[in-house]
Amino acid sequence: MSYYSPSIEKLIECFERLPSIGHKSAVRLAFHILSQSDEDTKDFINSILSAKKNLKYCSICYNISDTDPCNICSNKNRDSKTICVVENVRDIVAMEKTHEYKGVYHVLHGSISPMNGIGPDEIKIKELLDRIRQGNISEIILATNPRVEGEATAMYIAKLIKPLGIKVTRIAHGIPIGGDLEYTDEVTLIKAMEGRREI
Amino acid sequence: MSYYSPSIEKLIECFERLPSIGHKSAVRLAFHILSQSDEDTKDFINSILSAKKNLKYCSICYNISDTDPCNICSNKNRDSKTICVVENVRDIVAMEKTHEYKGVYHVLHGSISPMNGIGPDEIKIKELLDRIRQGNISEIILATNPRVEGEATAMYIAKLIKPLGIKVTRIAHGIPIGGDLEYTDEVTLIKAMEGRREI
Repeated sequence: MSYYSPSIEKLIECFERLPSIGHKSAVRLAFHILSQSDEDTKDFINSILSAKKNLKYCSICYNISDTDPCNICSNKNRDSKTICVVENVRDIVAMEKTHEYKGVYHVLHGSISPMNGIGPDEIKIKELLDRIRQGNISEIILATNPRVEGEATAMYIAKLIKPLGIKVTRIAHGIPIGGDLEYTDEVTLIKAMEGRREI
Repeated sequence: MSYYSPSIEKLIECFERLPSIGHKSAVRLAFHILSQSDEDTKDFINSILSAKKNLKYCSICYNISDTDPCNICSNKNRDSKTICVVENVRDIVAMEKTHEYKGVYHVLHGSISPMNGIGPDEIKIKELLDRIRQGNISEIILATNPRVEGEATAMYIAKLIKPLGIKVTRIAHGIPIGGDLEYTDEVTLIKAMEGRREI
């Protein structure tokens, strides 16, 4: 049985469908929308509509952007010979926040995950190979997530690219800065030992 | 400095303005909206628009409803002589879920809170008095929240109604069912002792 009016019920339902929004949050959000000014609501809806309308994939790196090519691919100061391969657009932002990386990116939009029915053809691997074949690439940095799927994806891509004679690297795994040896899981510790460097 | 495209930035900002949505949640929600089908987006926007358009205050009890009077006020099986006064619409739902209360409601849409500049005229107290003066009311149950503002509001309303010769009651405060005496705060314990009844 429903206790709210149909229009509120529908709005709560819509909010509940969003990720990590439970019933209580959905109710709070629905009542917030009802109490806000019509202008704020218009602003909210327009931002959704314009995002859906304006945003497209960059035809070079598959970043999501208002422009094509995206602002990274079209930036002349970036080293277009180095491509950092990431799983999704948010990973680009994480990397950009370091202010250290000056190369360009390639967004796979996922990782190989047979359990979820995602094979190599479902993500942008073919597009990466096409890009490499067009030449002038010196290094491919595989920055997929250090999980089973990300590792498998990195291995798969490395196998395809190595025969092309291009340097392929994988970002380092180890103990995060500020981390605690005592609380680091075994797999990370093993990776940290394997990846040790002379000082 | 912003790392996302302007349209995504704007969308993230809009989600961040919602209550209890932080930056990380806003990013997740924005990307969810971008990845969902146009149909789902249309559905989401329509539910917001129709809620804003269809919902109105019930002219009797100030519940928010698609119809006026609301489905509670227009229900002939409810006892319209007993009015339960609550702070907001969500409190009605909480009360309805008990399936016990058969009277009607009056929604104040807030509580008296001088700290926040909310005086008696900012909430629907005048409307409650008008309703009582129209006659045929036997009991007013004050079910505002047991906080400073809710208590003050209840006291204020009780003072205004008592001279009209109508029974005014306040919902009981005490230890919640399943609660623990050991972990109950002092004020609640005092209230529980004060409110003790012969068995």
